Amino acid sequence: MILSQPFSLYASATGLGLLVTLIALAKVSKDYNFDKKAASIALLIRRGAMAFLRKEYSILIGVIIVASGLIGYITSAVEAGAYTFGALSSMFAGFIGMHAATRANLLTTMVAKNEGERPALLTALMGGSVMGFTVATLALFGLSLLTFLYQDYATFGRILTCYAIGASSIALFARVGGGIYTKAADVGADLVGKLEQGIPEDDPRNPAVIADNVGDCVGDTAGMGADIFESFVAAVTATMVLALENSSYTSPLVSLPLVLSAIGIFASALGLLSVFVIPVQSEHLLHFAPNIAIVAFIVGSYFYMASAGIAMNLFGSVFLGAITGIIIGSITDYYTNGKPVRELAEASQSGAATNLIYGLALGFGSIVGSIWIIAAVVFASFNYFGGLYGVSLAAVSMLATIGIAMSVDAYGPIADNAGGIAEMSGFGPEVRKITDKLDTLGNMTAALGKGFAIGSAALSALAMFAAYCMASGLDALSLIDPTVITGMFIGATMPFLLSALTMKSVGKAAWKMVLEVRRQFKEIPGLMEGTGEPDYERCIEISTEAALYEMLLPGILTIAMPVLIRYGFGLQGKLALGGFLAGATLVGVPLALMMANAGGAWDNAKKFIEAGNFGGKGSDAHKAAVVGDTVGDPFKDTSGPSLNILIKLMSVLSLLLATI
Amino acid sequence: MILSQPFSLYASATGLGLLVTLIALAKVSKDYNFDKKAASIALLIRRGAMAFLRKEYSILIGVIIVASGLIGYITSAVEAGAYTFGALSSMFAGFIGMHAATRANLLTTMVAKNEGERPALLTALMGGSVMGFTVATLALFGLSLLTFLYQDYATFGRILTCYAIGASSIALFARVGGGIYTKAADVGADLVGKLEQGIPEDDPRNPAVIADNVGDCVGDTAGMGADIFESFVAAVTATMVLALENSSYTSPLVSLPLVLSAIGIFASALGLLSVFVIPVQSEHLLHFAPNIAIVAFIVGSYFYMASAGIAMNLFGSVFLGAITGIIIGSITDYYTNGKPVRELAEASQSGAATNLIYGLALGFGSIVGSIWIIAAVVFASFNYFGGLYGVSLAAVSMLATIGIAMSVDAYGPIADNAGGIAEMSGFGPEVRKITDKLDTLGNMTAALGKGFAIGSAALSALAMFAAYCMASGLDALSLIDPTVITGMFIGATMPFLLSALTMKSVGKAAWKMVLEVRRQFKEIPGLMEGTGEPDYERCIEISTEAALYEMLLPGILTIAMPVLIRYGFGLQGKLALGGFLAGATLVGVPLALMMANAGGAWDNAKKFIEAGNFGGKGSDAHKAAVVGDTVGDPFKDTSGPSLNILIKLMSVLSLLLATI
Repeated sequence: MILSQPFSLYASATGLGLLVTLIALAKVSKDYNFDKKAASIALLIRRGAMAFLRKEYSILIGVIIVASGLIGYITSAVEAGAYTFGALSSMFAGFIGMHAATRANLLTTMVAKNEGERPALLTALMGGSVMGFTVATLALFGLSLLTFLYQDYATFGRILTCYAIGASSIALFARVGGGIYTKAADVGADLVGKLEQGIPEDDPRNPAVIADNVGDCVGDTAGMGADIFESFVAAVTATMVLALENSSYTSPLVSLPLVLSAIGIFASALGLLSVFVIPVQSEHLLHFAPNIAIVAFIVGSYFYMASAGIAMNLFGSVFLGAITGIIIGSITDYYTNGKPVRELAEASQSGAATNLIYGLALGFGSIVGSIWIIAAVVFASFNYFGGLYGVSLAAVSMLATIGIAMSVDAYGPIADNAGGIAEMSGFGPEVRKITDKLDTLGNMTAALGKGFAIGSAALSALAMFAAYCMASGLDALSLIDPTVITGMFIGATMPFLLSALTMKSVGKAAWKMVLEVRRQFKEIPGLMEGTGEPDYERCIEISTEAALYEMLLPGILTIAMPVLIRYGFGLQGKLALGGFLAGATLVGVPLALMMANAGGAWDNAKKFIEAGNFGGKGSDAHKAAVVGDTVGDPFKDTSGPSLNILIKLMSVLSLLLATI
Repeated sequence: MILSQPFSLYASATGLGLLVTLIALAKVSKDYNFDKKAASIALLIRRGAMAFLRKEYSILIGVIIVASGLIGYITSAVEAGAYTFGALSSMFAGFIGMHAATRANLLTTMVAKNEGERPALLTALMGGSVMGFTVATLALFGLSLLTFLYQDYATFGRILTCYAIGASSIALFARVGGGIYTKAADVGADLVGKLEQGIPEDDPRNPAVIADNVGDCVGDTAGMGADIFESFVAAVTATMVLALENSSYTSPLVSLPLVLSAIGIFASALGLLSVFVIPVQSEHLLHFAPNIAIVAFIVGSYFYMASAGIAMNLFGSVFLGAITGIIIGSITDYYTNGKPVRELAEASQSGAATNLIYGLALGFGSIVGSIWIIAAVVFASFNYFGGLYGVSLAAVSMLATIGIAMSVDAYGPIADNAGGIAEMSGFGPEVRKITDKLDTLGNMTAALGKGFAIGSAALSALAMFAAYCMASGLDALSLIDPTVITGMFIGATMPFLLSALTMKSVGKAAWKMVLEVRRQFKEIPGLMEGTGEPDYERCIEISTEAALYEMLLPGILTIAMPVLIRYGFGLQGKLALGGFLAGATLVGVPLALMMANAGGAWDNAKKFIEAGNFGGKGSDAHKAAVVGDTVGDPFKDTSGPSLNILIKLMSVLSLLLATI
């Protein structure tokens, strides 16, 4: 074996990532003087979350067995192994992340009660960083291990691709299933609890309240983690495949994406450390840490590239990729926290219909800036910095600091849960005030995280698309070719179809939840008065079953369509599939962004009114805003995120098909 | 001059079209024993509609002068003349159509009162056929006149293109302005009248009620007419340009699109005649007439092509194009009248949010079938029948029978108006029952008409796109080229941007209307009791001003963006513009379909509940359905239709840019 790649660098970054993960895990798992009621509620959430994971994983094991068997039959055992490795890595990351999140939520509540805001904020961030660093570390570990083991295999690129497919297939189920779970519980809880019974959010009398809190972990932690893990793996894989097309294995261009990932882990650790050392204000803390990491990453990459003798024009792509996340984040922030949200809140005064019209218009308009930024990055990276490889490198660079980006993201559901536990445990308003603030900060980062996830999915998909064209030997994929046009039109329908299916699933599942919650309020004596005990378990079961059942059709479609297009068009299949991918990406990215931004804006417009504007809670404007928020829920947490997976999974599957 | 084309055929078809128009015009303009109150209300509507047209046209004259000056400066006076001719033709068609519609509405009401359902139905259809046959006849006249006059000009293709741009620029303003007008009035009237004051639709006490009725004519008659006129002209132009690239002027391939248009007029006249001769049931009459025309068109085209010695594989494209309209219509019908609508109505029982989620999901899902059909037509036409020319020919064939298709479409607002006049005149329930039925039939054809408009816009845009690529000398437009990708991403944002702008415009304009209607209810004594006189004029003014002001920004963007892309990318401009068009079309078509279908479904779900299902009028389900219907209004009547124009106008402008 030619030990030409800087494996020691990868190993040390992996070691550091592991260290951070373990420290964080230890911190949030420590014993504490827990309130008894709070602990029992947290236990319910933890059990519910783990029950979902168990059920989901028992299905996924079946999927993995079938898929790896299929891959092994078509290619070889090595590829099947790589697939299984990728899938298990993603599952493991989800498990660890959930494990930490469902412990950190309780600890955060207690720390908020006993020690105050800042320690609670840092506790929740610690909890999130378990997920963040696990994802980053596992990805680097997996990819560098495969690189180490199979470097002299002719099918090295295909092995990496199979690893990426493993990650993707888990992400599909985690995102779609998790997204349906969380929104079925949330919408169901709100429709009966808030609207019919008039009890507040997170009220322990609401039978769906535990399912709602479980949903935050299931959808926002495990789902998001699998999503980002997939993006990262896909981007690195595509970049390496593209590099291998033009240069030998020993070229620094092949190792560059892994090196950047390693630098990203160092930078992320620095970012996380910084907020423990530097007394940043709580309001800015969750932005400060990733920004420090990005600066460190840019500086580190510059020196590495200069010293390794890599053409410095490639640094342009790295730089652009690294700041793209911040720019898209700022645009998202504007549309989900800025002036448009206040306008949306104002429009709510004339009723639900106006709120909806304005919200949809806001969503439609909000995509323009972000898509133009992505277009500019593609254009500049390709033309000035490094061709398709440059585009792909920008994707890697955007994702390199996911260690800290994911940490901040996974902070959100922990803070949200902490609020729920505080409310249900009957803690006083001063505790609730702290957890509310933590939650608000989390909502801001959640919107940013969604923008980041979509932006990175877009760049990863483009990178995969480029790798697909290379691997298929397509020098051109002409828009004047009818096969390509046909493929594009069919591809363009996929995001719409998936959105339709997932939204309807949420509607159906939420409806079942509504019936159950209504039944409990009717049949359980003393429930409304607080003397009866709600049956939380049954609500958790409903969400779990609905999520797992409803994810099947979208899942099958996503996997089957690329195969059907590839072989259905016969000899023209490669062209059709290329068009198909382009169409799906071109429609999927703006649609996902639109859904995420509209959903975020509706959510925050409601909160803006609840803060006392335009009549405050209970006013007509508030009622209208609640409708918008409820519509926005599946937009931002189910359908939108599912589209990320759709475009990435179809791309990576196509790449595999191209190499068979 | 070489009189090689069958000009006598064109002339006789034009003559027949003119004859039908004049007969229909005479029929609906005839004197009748009009009810005095009804006549005064109809006069208000007529005056309001004409006031809008006058204002709009005074702006458009300015646009025409500037644009023709610009075109004349860049090219020559002939092109400037062709542009002006196209623009004036479209304006003339709009004027005549409105003139007829605002007379036929009153006559239909009176005939319904005195003679019964069927005569009233036929009267309204006659009124619509003025618009339908004017559009078809004028298009054939204009195109064949230009063909006759400028056949030996080297820039013949460019002259036709300028004619098409003339039609397009009017369509832009008519569709966008008209769409904003009609929905500002409709939404404004409903929000205060139905929701706040609890008075029924079309109640004469509502100050916005006349503006609402004017809006039906302005948006659905003039706007739709200009839209279809543009599609037709664009499709024929593109086909002729494509034919000229490969064959001489005297080739039957160059004349084929005009011949098909002529056959289409004969077939349309036959279709219209058939329902006066054959005793078809009222329920099926509006489907029967177009279907007869399509069959006649297919038969006629077959015999012409066989006798003219044209390669019969091209007949495949003609056949496919002709039946595409019916197929897309059936799909639209399913989603806006079938089982999904009943599900949507059922979902309304759990509130507005569920109604919205289901409606959006329905819209998303509804596009799949239609887009696949379009893709299949493109694929088959290109590969098996006639390359790009075949695709373009399918578009012409789909549009050839617009004479009758537009007649049926323009029937809708007349029937709608008739209902309004009957209600406001205090006619008894038996009259209202007839007009309600006529209105229901009109709603069905309106949904079909929208599907048809979008399908034909898609095919026309593809034809234009093909002509653009030819004229630009682009042999390939590769999806792997970063300039093309960048153009595509920017193009993909355009439909979202335009939707955002137009939806927000409706929201803003409707809000102004709400304030005015509220003011009148507050300040005019006895208005609610029916003793005070509402100020209808002021509401008409508000809609007119808002429409004309709000259409500026979308209009400017639509015209400016292709120019910016073409010249902003320097030498790569042609590639970028090609990608831009592809992106805009690929996103615009499904988005427009989604909006049309969701809007139609919300509308009909509300009507389904009003018919007594799930609690009927006044129930919670009904309230939820009203919210969905209100959101659907700008979807289906403003933003969706505006997208048709967007993709066509940008394509035809680009074609002009390619020839400079």
